[in-house]
Amino acid sequence: MKFIDLRSDTVTMPTDKMREEMFKAVVGDDVYGDDPTIVELEEYAAKLVGKEAALFVPSGTFGNQLALLTHCKRGDEVILGDDCHIVAHEVGGASVIAGVQLRTLQSNKGILNPEEIKSKIREEDIHYPETGLICIENAHSNGRVIPLENMKKIYKIGQKYNIPVHLDGARIFNAATHLGVDVKEVTKNCDSVMFCLSKGLCAPVGSILAGTKEFIDKARKGRKLMGGGLRQAGFLGAAGLISLKEMTKRLEEDHENALLLGEKLSKIPGIEVNFEDIHINMVFFNIKNTGYNIENLVDILYSKGIKINPPENGVMRFVTHYWITKEKISYVVNTLEELLSK
Amino acid sequence: MKFIDLRSDTVTMPTDKMREEMFKAVVGDDVYGDDPTIVELEEYAAKLVGKEAALFVPSGTFGNQLALLTHCKRGDEVILGDDCHIVAHEVGGASVIAGVQLRTLQSNKGILNPEEIKSKIREEDIHYPETGLICIENAHSNGRVIPLENMKKIYKIGQKYNIPVHLDGARIFNAATHLGVDVKEVTKNCDSVMFCLSKGLCAPVGSILAGTKEFIDKARKGRKLMGGGLRQAGFLGAAGLISLKEMTKRLEEDHENALLLGEKLSKIPGIEVNFEDIHINMVFFNIKNTGYNIENLVDILYSKGIKINPPENGVMRFVTHYWITKEKISYVVNTLEELLSK
Amino acid sequence: MKFIDLRSDTVTMPTDKMREEMFKAVVGDDVYGDDPTIVELEEYAAKLVGKEAALFVPSGTFGNQLALLTHCKRGDEVILGDDCHIVAHEVGGASVIAGVQLRTLQSNKGILNPEEIKSKIREEDIHYPETGLICIENAHSNGRVIPLENMKKIYKIGQKYNIPVHLDGARIFNAATHLGVDVKEVTKNCDSVMFCLSKGLCAPVGSILAGTKEFIDKARKGRKLMGGGLRQAGFLGAAGLISLKEMTKRLEEDHENALLLGEKLSKIPGIEVNFEDIHINMVFFNIKNTGYNIENLVDILYSKGIKINPPENGVMRFVTHYWITKEKISYVVNTLEELLSK
Amino acid sequence: MKFIDLRSDTVTMPTDKMREEMFKAVVGDDVYGDDPTIVELEEYAAKLVGKEAALFVPSGTFGNQLALLTHCKRGDEVILGDDCHIVAHEVGGASVIAGVQLRTLQSNKGILNPEEIKSKIREEDIHYPETGLICIENAHSNGRVIPLENMKKIYKIGQKYNIPVHLDGARIFNAATHLGVDVKEVTKNCDSVMFCLSKGLCAPVGSILAGTKEFIDKARKGRKLMGGGLRQAGFLGAAGLISLKEMTKRLEEDHENALLLGEKLSKIPGIEVNFEDIHINMVFFNIKNTGYNIENLVDILYSKGIKINPPENGVMRFVTHYWITKEKISYVVNTLEELLSK
Repeated sequence: MKFIDLRSDTVTMPTDKMREEMFKAVVGDDVYGDDPTIVELEEYAAKLVGKEAALFVPSGTFGNQLALLTHCKRGDEVILGDDCHIVAHEVGGASVIAGVQLRTLQSNKGILNPEEIKSKIREEDIHYPETGLICIENAHSNGRVIPLENMKKIYKIGQKYNIPVHLDGARIFNAATHLGVDVKEVTKNCDSVMFCLSKGLCAPVGSILAGTKEFIDKARKGRKLMGGGLRQAGFLGAAGLISLKEMTKRLEEDHENALLLGEKLSKIPGIEVNFEDIHINMVFFNIKNTGYNIENLVDILYSKGIKINPPENGVMRFVTHYWITKEKISYVVNTLEELLSK
Repeated sequence: MKFIDLRSDTVTMPTDKMREEMFKAVVGDDVYGDDPTIVELEEYAAKLVGKEAALFVPSGTFGNQLALLTHCKRGDEVILGDDCHIVAHEVGGASVIAGVQLRTLQSNKGILNPEEIKSKIREEDIHYPETGLICIENAHSNGRVIPLENMKKIYKIGQKYNIPVHLDGARIFNAATHLGVDVKEVTKNCDSVMFCLSKGLCAPVGSILAGTKEFIDKARKGRKLMGGGLRQAGFLGAAGLISLKEMTKRLEEDHENALLLGEKLSKIPGIEVNFEDIHINMVFFNIKNTGYNIENLVDILYSKGIKINPPENGVMRFVTHYWITKEKISYVVNTLEELLSK
Repeated sequence: MKFIDLRSDTVTMPTDKMREEMFKAVVGDDVYGDDPTIVELEEYAAKLVGKEAALFVPSGTFGNQLALLTHCKRGDEVILGDDCHIVAHEVGGASVIAGVQLRTLQSNKGILNPEEIKSKIREEDIHYPETGLICIENAHSNGRVIPLENMKKIYKIGQKYNIPVHLDGARIFNAATHLGVDVKEVTKNCDSVMFCLSKGLCAPVGSILAGTKEFIDKARKGRKLMGGGLRQAGFLGAAGLISLKEMTKRLEEDHENALLLGEKLSKIPGIEVNFEDIHINMVFFNIKNTGYNIENLVDILYSKGIKINPPENGVMRFVTHYWITKEKISYVVNTLEELLSK
Repeated sequence: MKFIDLRSDTVTMPTDKMREEMFKAVVGDDVYGDDPTIVELEEYAAKLVGKEAALFVPSGTFGNQLALLTHCKRGDEVILGDDCHIVAHEVGGASVIAGVQLRTLQSNKGILNPEEIKSKIREEDIHYPETGLICIENAHSNGRVIPLENMKKIYKIGQKYNIPVHLDGARIFNAATHLGVDVKEVTKNCDSVMFCLSKGLCAPVGSILAGTKEFIDKARKGRKLMGGGLRQAGFLGAAGLISLKEMTKRLEEDHENALLLGEKLSKIPGIEVNFEDIHINMVFFNIKNTGYNIENLVDILYSKGIKINPPENGVMRFVTHYWITKEKISYVVNTLEELLSK
């Protein structure tokens, strides 16, 4: 990996061990249920998050949309935060595939108010859709981890009103690492969970949807409908097994590196780092007051071997991951400091 | 009309003149375009609100859902207030029929912040749906009228970003009456508008969707798909014509009566009337501090010839209309006072 | 009714008695369940066709689409004839509203082969949707009546495989009249039935969906979602009650007139009448061999006070109804004969 | 591969060379357009089938459903054969994702009658959906290859009526091999084509959708909506490149082996082989007249190292592919003969 890629943890290359395991993978036709590596992965994944069953899906978006399709009837209403991934980054899929109505709540940096959720649950009335699902996202794509206490309250409401709770846990192992708990402590507060094998865990492709056996049986058919029934998927599964068995244990390093990166950045004059938002592997900072022309920054850094996303409203996001070592962090900060001091 | 019905203005019986006009109506098969009364109604309605064309539809919900279906592609995102009728009272239809994603903003008593709308318009990005429509509701179903200045700003944003603006004007003539302007002053701030011939205007059944000729041509086909292609609809049209020609001019009376009702109610000990919310024909008031058992109120008043809806969170809504005279208001207030003083 | 309108029975004007009953109708807000005329109509209609409950809907298309929405989950498969109204004339609504997959069978003049239906019922397989519904149409919009024996066989299959059977009975009273049976003999072979109060029965607007109480309760909410919750619908209900109580009994006359019209037409040189297709009030005939320029026929007849639809592939359809008397039939045939002999 | 797997060519394991290429694959984040192997694959694939652009998708079903979503508006009608994969084996997805109405024609062993297609194209009428797409399948999943002359006629009709034609070419290289033409001779008769890298071509996962640049740009966004935006997909792409560069050239061998298998099977008393259906790598044969209990056959053969699907209505399908050598064919036939002679 020649470039230093800070755009996201989705850019992570698989590790050498992953390549080796993929090379040796024992595979089969997974639509027939014949792929032993996928079977192993699904069993391992289910156990890891304390659910009865799990299903391999091609992406996090796929897993979330499949959860909506499986939990809800067409026309049901889904309560979720207005800044969550399903609302903000899934191309409106919820209205196309599952055909559900999103009832968005203003989130407090990703945290939903349980009382507000309760107030939005629909009573029986000829004018109302049924509330079919509540969604939480943890870690949130804004980089923050939702407190367990908040999740517990929401899950309790779901159970009381008999409404399932789905957890978009694309980066759930980052959340568990930040919270310092076993991932089951997080996932016990939901009925279904989607989490990614890629991103910080480095697998090339794939996510997991987990829940009750009945839910996963139904989701398996929905996966086929959505075109996600793959054949010799065990190659992806072999990498995914390393993600779950090994890579989940090293995320603390990425989080420490994010803090380190934040600290170094904060010493550059004009840069303001939101330290309270550094829960996992994401550093958000404001570069507006440097007086530097940030328009060209993406291109200039690219020419120096660094890939970044352009700022949104002056705010930049750098993401650490397996391939971002402390040395690279130093190089990035030094390069940036030099540029901005001109 | 023996009962005094304060539940809504949807309960309005047609006037005697409406019955007579319906009796004499010249009708035809409107799917063939052969119903002269519907043709007249649609032409009259279009002209009244300053649009090129108009279409008769069976209900306000039908007209709103048809607007979504006609303006948007499946998967488009619609920006609107989280307390508007489309979100709150149309059974999730937007996700079933048009297949669009609702992007709800927290409204300030029905008023949307134009800057917030602007910030929610989606740029081109592979993760984003397209923003397909902005919806405003005026008068709002919370009883308040949206200022024209606010509508103008929102419409300007729509035009700038080439996003159509739909107005849910179920009670638009109440809004125009409150604002003291010709209804065209309201409707010029939108690309399409739905308004009801029933409710305060007393027609038994039917609403109008109006917009450009091209929009209405497309909506006409969508109306057929949704099962709203009616045959000898001119009977309903005959009443609707009186709604538009005559009943739109007497709404001031209902608004005055609402104020009168509010004033009288406010004199009953413990009742708190939200006078700032009395823009049109709706009076909201809080009865919690009367110490009276409001659970039985609906039944007791019913036995005294008065129909009301049960309170929501202690707040009651009484609605005035053509059939609610000053005498009836006195009877209602006296009856209530007597009950509460026990 | 000045024109002689042979285009369809959808063009039927209401009778004088209907106008009178509409004038006097006692109405209320049907969304609140307060319209006594609608309540009476729905009870009468349910009893008439031997079902537990019934629901007034704005049109036949509305009733069929609502049946699909109520019986099926999104993605279910519906088995039906490729020439039936739902497939051919409802604007593709089944894929938009209910979101179901149509599995069309080639019909034999409207008659479906029960064995073929059976062969299309899906087994449990990860590649297959569930079969959610079987639809029959009787009388068929091609003018023919489906034999009871065929309906029985299909219904038996539905019951055996636990798949509901919906009957599109837009002209079910024409079917019962042709078969010489009580309409319940037809409707006992289905789980739900839609029939029109308009068409040959002359009501201006409206149809009925009937089935079990549970089905109709669910459909009532679906009707609201589709925008079919009307307010003072009793005006339409008053006409509809006459449709059911009186007009159902005079359809034999329309059928006789159709035969009479067919016989008279067949004597015009070159015209070929399909007598075997005259089951109800529709006469299909071929005018190609008259050598006459049929392109202008619509306009010429219009100028002589006769409305017809243009031929499809040389085949014309004339429809008799309440307003087509024997005298008018003579006038039509004489006018046509004169034109063609030129 | 220890078992001899005749169930399908979807079961094909990747070749050793594929494993090696996957091991060495240069990958990147394909949602950012950064995966060079996917870029190469898509360019190579587009050129190979003579289209402007191509897109990697997770499965054949995914590619077909994405084609429907991209070509059609919700509610459009799609003309296709009643026995094609989209109708028969994609879980009703067309009604859920694209929301289109399937208009199925009875196929003659996979061949559609161009005149019948023409007759089903909808004219402009308020009762009709728009015809949005025509689909052909070649090779058909029944094992037969559609003649080029038939495809040409259908494509001509599509062009005349301005209706796009999509080709489900899951096994298009088998079709081209059987026809003895360059694959472009097949794909020039369609606007878009989906073909699989797996199946007979042995890649573990993945298919290609190809068409105009504009179509593929739109499909790329639809792919994201459907959850098919993958990250380091180049591992799958590396295998897919071998599929296209090398494996497409050896399919003749599978076809010869299918014929050989058919000839050997036909010599077993009681077995009837449909030789006219052996166009590609599938052998269909009837085992009913052997008097053998076919219920246990699947299990017995499994115990002898042979995997087969159970017969449908007495008809069995054996599929040859890369891993089915002549030796294995002899073993299968001998094993079967021995069993049946008992």
